[in-house]
Amino acid sequence: MFKKVLVANRGEIAVRIIRSLKEMGIKTVAIYSTAERDSLHVQLADEAVCVGGATATSSYLNVKNILAAAIGTGAEAIHPGYGFLSESAEFAKMCNECGLTFIGPKAETIDQMGNKEHARQIMIKNHVPVTPGSKDFIHSAEEAKEIAEKIGYPILLKAAAGGGGKGIRQVFKPEEMEAALSAAQSEAKTDFGDDRMYLEKVMQNVKHIEVQIFRDQFGNCVYFPERDCSLQRNKQKVIEESPCDLITDEERKKLGKIAVQAANVVGYLNTGTIEFLMDQDHNFYFMEMNTRIQVEHTVTEMVTDVDLVKAQIQVAAGEKLPFAQEDLKPRGYAIECRINAEDAENNFMPSVGNIDYLYLPVGNPGMRIDTALYQGEKISPFYDSMLAKLVAFGKTRDEAICKMRRLLQEMVIRGITTNQEFHLAILEDPVFLTSEFTNTYLEKEFLPAWKKEVSDEAISA
Amino acid sequence: MFKKVLVANRGEIAVRIIRSLKEMGIKTVAIYSTAERDSLHVQLADEAVCVGGATATSSYLNVKNILAAAIGTGAEAIHPGYGFLSESAEFAKMCNECGLTFIGPKAETIDQMGNKEHARQIMIKNHVPVTPGSKDFIHSAEEAKEIAEKIGYPILLKAAAGGGGKGIRQVFKPEEMEAALSAAQSEAKTDFGDDRMYLEKVMQNVKHIEVQIFRDQFGNCVYFPERDCSLQRNKQKVIEESPCDLITDEERKKLGKIAVQAANVVGYLNTGTIEFLMDQDHNFYFMEMNTRIQVEHTVTEMVTDVDLVKAQIQVAAGEKLPFAQEDLKPRGYAIECRINAEDAENNFMPSVGNIDYLYLPVGNPGMRIDTALYQGEKISPFYDSMLAKLVAFGKTRDEAICKMRRLLQEMVIRGITTNQEFHLAILEDPVFLTSEFTNTYLEKEFLPAWKKEVSDEAISA
Repeated sequence: MFKKVLVANRGEIAVRIIRSLKEMGIKTVAIYSTAERDSLHVQLADEAVCVGGATATSSYLNVKNILAAAIGTGAEAIHPGYGFLSESAEFAKMCNECGLTFIGPKAETIDQMGNKEHARQIMIKNHVPVTPGSKDFIHSAEEAKEIAEKIGYPILLKAAAGGGGKGIRQVFKPEEMEAALSAAQSEAKTDFGDDRMYLEKVMQNVKHIEVQIFRDQFGNCVYFPERDCSLQRNKQKVIEESPCDLITDEERKKLGKIAVQAANVVGYLNTGTIEFLMDQDHNFYFMEMNTRIQVEHTVTEMVTDVDLVKAQIQVAAGEKLPFAQEDLKPRGYAIECRINAEDAENNFMPSVGNIDYLYLPVGNPGMRIDTALYQGEKISPFYDSMLAKLVAFGKTRDEAICKMRRLLQEMVIRGITTNQEFHLAILEDPVFLTSEFTNTYLEKEFLPAWKKEVSDEAISA
Repeated sequence: MFKKVLVANRGEIAVRIIRSLKEMGIKTVAIYSTAERDSLHVQLADEAVCVGGATATSSYLNVKNILAAAIGTGAEAIHPGYGFLSESAEFAKMCNECGLTFIGPKAETIDQMGNKEHARQIMIKNHVPVTPGSKDFIHSAEEAKEIAEKIGYPILLKAAAGGGGKGIRQVFKPEEMEAALSAAQSEAKTDFGDDRMYLEKVMQNVKHIEVQIFRDQFGNCVYFPERDCSLQRNKQKVIEESPCDLITDEERKKLGKIAVQAANVVGYLNTGTIEFLMDQDHNFYFMEMNTRIQVEHTVTEMVTDVDLVKAQIQVAAGEKLPFAQEDLKPRGYAIECRINAEDAENNFMPSVGNIDYLYLPVGNPGMRIDTALYQGEKISPFYDSMLAKLVAFGKTRDEAICKMRRLLQEMVIRGITTNQEFHLAILEDPVFLTSEFTNTYLEKEFLPAWKKEVSDEAISA
């Protein structure tokens, strides 16, 4: 096992990883930007190295300084967390070249899965169902229109190298195709230096269902109960849960097999998540694969009673998977609310400031709060607005929801504005309570109604 | 189900009960003394009633004011927590006379089990193994000596109505018997108005092993995996764990059956705990029964994934047990450290003061902190010194211990002295790590060695 590991991240995920390392008796090295000298992850680590200025580019994305910090402190491995360098095949490769273990998949796999059309092609070849669309890159608006005619509008034009919503256009009818394609292509050329495009049907009335898999170097592979991450705003997940209350054991198994098949096909190493869309008839379509630990891994840990980060480290060190498929039946339901520093009532404007008072409602069975917050902390404007993850577990979905409501009601964060009230409103929503929401429900239906309610209240007050 | 419940307690257990009630959608009434207007349990409850002055006698033991508070607020039931009125048959009876449900066993059962010799007699009659001793009350020193000769010295003389270490004498040889008996009798007469005595062998090299049972009004009864509570100081438990690493599945079942038999014999209602001594050969001897929820119920919840307080409320409301025996296999190991406001290095002197800074290391899988602490709180000198319960869970005992170590290292409580360091020292102890400790180990072996070490360090510093 490693003696020392560098954690190339910040915030709650850095804290979470450092804690698992400590429990394993492994020495920890934190990295930080000049804006985060006093952050919790720095305080908890055995050593900490400043790797650059406040902006992410100059610190948490500063590959050279991070590698130098790892080498200088004698770390043997790097855990990238999520975001930042976690899905950089280049970084994974450089780690290996420096004799450091990158805790994650092989660089080639990150590369393969990072190119979304490439990933799609692999899945198609291996009979993993994918969203209807082009079977290869498209070369002209005519070709695109032909395919769109077959699979039905609306469709999405997507850059193969895309990400973060760039190089992507929705097309509702043939007349729009030409202009949309040329716009998407020119954006992709500018942003990614690669204007290859593919086409996908816009799936309507679908849920975002994802399956985490874990595979070791001996070819053992397991899947975890699916997560329903359909509640999203601005392509960001807001509430995640596991398992999905609408999916049967039978379907869970079938979906798990598809996910394991996909992982085996690419010779996957360590953990990753395959994102699917599920239609009204419970057909699943491969969307993409995330080759890292995800924010919402907590709900999976809650329902299966494993430490996924610990397992990542074990498997990266060459050990066998520490769990078998039969250990991973969901023992109940877990739900996560992402607490962000944002003013939900004011178009989700980011909020910055000092944490003047903090009360985290710890205690009682079946709950967990992952956060790097502490009282007196200054929330800097440079990074992600996520402050904390509230996780609640119950034998039934209803029980988990009741627990989460209590957590949200009890938690006190003073000094900045958070989306606590917004979460509480979702938790009261009748559609939410039935689980019958799709991936556009929050944005297109819930949010407009909630905004109206909030503004009516403001007027009457 | 009840619509409103009064919680007749304070501190962490009041908070814990209020939280479960909230999750069940039941309105909560807190009670408080004039010293605790700002306590967390008061802040969390829907309503709160001041029931008296700072001393426990005038507030948390003030039966009339508590009953008046319940009636005045329209509560339908009272949860007594542990300590205070939780084992008062009289209080349970008065609740019923006022039309209030006492969340606990019937008054008769509390009464039966409260008289320790009576409880012993019931167990003997029903073939539950008890500590060797007198079969009935003893009437003279001669009779006591005869019995002691048979079972072997040392023995304990114990008042039938005893408790809190009063009316109890250890006797090492026949010559001491007469004086010891008359001293114990006169103490018992003064303190309890009842000088009936019985005699018990002092068991040596034994563990304190206890089994929690739960029985509903339909006669369904289950047992939970045993707890090892052998680590005690001054008759107070310091660290508790479940299950006991030395007990086999076979023994667990056998012990569970004895506990269920004992519960059935007395027609027990709700939850209770049967305390046993276990000798080197793993023979179990009934000691006594606690007819309430215990401090250490948390470790049981951790390993069996149930909410015992919620189940108490359900069963008290007439519902069936919400779990079956086969649901209650331990899914790993849990350990609890009681964090007290005391100066371990200075003879465990109680510490009072203000909580100037508080950092509770929440997050990561498998941990729980039950506490009523909050930053800015004033710790009053009137009540129990227990501030928090740290609970850690792992697939193995070692994993749970590693987790607990991390919790103890991370937690920050400034403004008062706690026994955090003392716990850390125990967690490093080789005997502790083997589980091979008896109920006198902490006090007689660990503590003297630790004191010496601490004082040597102080001298060399």
